Amino acid sequence: MSTLKVNLPQKSYPIWIQKGILNHIGQEIKKIYKNRKIAIITDFNVEKLYGERIKEQLSTDFEIKMIVVEPGEKSKSIDVLQNVYNELLEFEITRGDLIIAFGGGVVGDLTGFAAATLLRGISFIQVPTSLLAQIDSSVGGKVAVNLPKGKNLVGNFYHPKAVFIDPDVLKTLDKRFFSDGMAEVIKYGCIRDQKLFDDLLSYTEEELFEHIEEIIYTCCHIKKSIVERDELDTGERMLLNFGHTLGHAVEKHYKYEKYTHGEAVAIGMYHITKKGEALGITDRTTAERLKEILCKYHLPYEMPTMDQEEIIKIIGLDKKNKGQYMNIILIKKIGESFIQKIHRKDIVAYI
Amino acid sequence: MSTLKVNLPQKSYPIWIQKGILNHIGQEIKKIYKNRKIAIITDFNVEKLYGERIKEQLSTDFEIKMIVVEPGEKSKSIDVLQNVYNELLEFEITRGDLIIAFGGGVVGDLTGFAAATLLRGISFIQVPTSLLAQIDSSVGGKVAVNLPKGKNLVGNFYHPKAVFIDPDVLKTLDKRFFSDGMAEVIKYGCIRDQKLFDDLLSYTEEELFEHIEEIIYTCCHIKKSIVERDELDTGERMLLNFGHTLGHAVEKHYKYEKYTHGEAVAIGMYHITKKGEALGITDRTTAERLKEILCKYHLPYEMPTMDQEEIIKIIGLDKKNKGQYMNIILIKKIGESFIQKIHRKDIVAYI
Repeated sequence: MSTLKVNLPQKSYPIWIQKGILNHIGQEIKKIYKNRKIAIITDFNVEKLYGERIKEQLSTDFEIKMIVVEPGEKSKSIDVLQNVYNELLEFEITRGDLIIAFGGGVVGDLTGFAAATLLRGISFIQVPTSLLAQIDSSVGGKVAVNLPKGKNLVGNFYHPKAVFIDPDVLKTLDKRFFSDGMAEVIKYGCIRDQKLFDDLLSYTEEELFEHIEEIIYTCCHIKKSIVERDELDTGERMLLNFGHTLGHAVEKHYKYEKYTHGEAVAIGMYHITKKGEALGITDRTTAERLKEILCKYHLPYEMPTMDQEEIIKIIGLDKKNKGQYMNIILIKKIGESFIQKIHRKDIVAYI
Repeated sequence: MSTLKVNLPQKSYPIWIQKGILNHIGQEIKKIYKNRKIAIITDFNVEKLYGERIKEQLSTDFEIKMIVVEPGEKSKSIDVLQNVYNELLEFEITRGDLIIAFGGGVVGDLTGFAAATLLRGISFIQVPTSLLAQIDSSVGGKVAVNLPKGKNLVGNFYHPKAVFIDPDVLKTLDKRFFSDGMAEVIKYGCIRDQKLFDDLLSYTEEELFEHIEEIIYTCCHIKKSIVERDELDTGERMLLNFGHTLGHAVEKHYKYEKYTHGEAVAIGMYHITKKGEALGITDRTTAERLKEILCKYHLPYEMPTMDQEEIIKIIGLDKKNKGQYMNIILIKKIGESFIQKIHRKDIVAYI
């Protein structure tokens, strides 16, 4: 078992990473939670595969309620959020009780925001079941729902009480969603860890699964270190958005239907790296290596045809962009990233 | 001018109290805010009376947008919140910009929650225009909207950058809403300040207005001191809920239409004090003195006929009540309050 601890000024919490941890998660939760009620929020896919197992683990010691939402980005809406509030209130949840986010990024973000806001804050635990959620969205306290105008526009910084990661559940993850997560794993390599990038390039499929616990640990370690230094995303944390600005534009253009988040980020990473090369900011051949690794993990890299005006409009609504200037993340080379502050009028060169 | 400073571990902010401060609020804001965009959220009543004045104050130095909602509790809904998000995004607001809550408690709570959550947090300033907001809801960081199941069920603890209180605007406040605020002023007397209570009992109407700046200061001082010691409302801060548990039940039963918040709290305070006397917890004659002061300030005191089962159900949804036990605020005598933890089964004696 690997463990990490996220240390923040007001709160510290552990991340437990272990194959099979889902088979004794009841004991683990009993150690850190003493009240009776637990609401588990999940989606239909996860419920079908692991619903019984988590219920078995928890129902002896706790009074539990399962709230099951539709899988997919559409559940990160204010409408679904209101249903979740309603079900939690029907369960007569109180501030002293516990909510578990049991699912991928959508479930984690939705649950986290519901927990952050209902009764002005109820404790919650993340049990991420997708690779994307295990290495990215379950760590760092960003919780949110979408608005018609864009992704994650409404949210909080609200940290879980603990994160339990079981890499074994990835075995049942749809191949496409495994790749979805791999895009973010590759991102960590790009922005901070050349060795991770090189390992990913060299691994066979078998080796990848052999090393998965270590890979998840590496990613969570990079993320938690950055979050500790910049929880509120006003500086270094923006590095985690490498590929995301354009990625969001692509996702939104296709109404979050054509591309997964990771696929859109893959496109965004490749595109900005090519632009970086063209501008003489990024070392030559970096985009080529990125393309190689993206192909290996069944991820797209080519920017679809989109209206430039539309891209600029969507980017303008990105919450990282303050006023006249925008922050774009670029890499110098694999493993070395930085924030470029550019004037809005210069954005065209980067898209 | 009186000033107070709210000191919290992560944030400190000033409260400025001055008759006529609205006439130079532009200068004051210029000192503490350096970007260009300001969104002002207000309601139609306040807009009609003071909209031009605040626009004049701010439009020279800032790019401003007024967002005007319907007056009244109904605007603290998720629907109105979504409209506010939308208008703020249309204004292309960014994290570095500023939002001003210009109105009573409804506007303050709605604006504060919008500011707390849009883009995961935008700075905001409170400019409360009702007595209730000036002495209570604008200070302490509680922001929220209502759900069909109850008041303030969805919210955050999110503090403003500053609070500017102009007691002069109370001159145009409807008498009923002045009384609404007086209920909370009386509450501060009950829970913490016998002198305040006695002064309120002795003042003529003229004297009350003469001393209004001092009264607001006293109330804000009590509140900020309590909030500093218990920001997240897990202990001492609950004292501020004196009269509120039953008050919420009364408000909700009448769908927030028949009674103002203060009127409902007045009923709640009187009722729990009478119960306290009956139980031998509260000194005799306390309820009588409370009744006298409530009548003086045109506030109701008698509990309307309500089904006991319904009251208990509504109270159970109150977010302060954890599991099997509930916290009820009682007073020993005027100026001395305490939290009574009671088992759910014993609640009947207190309602």
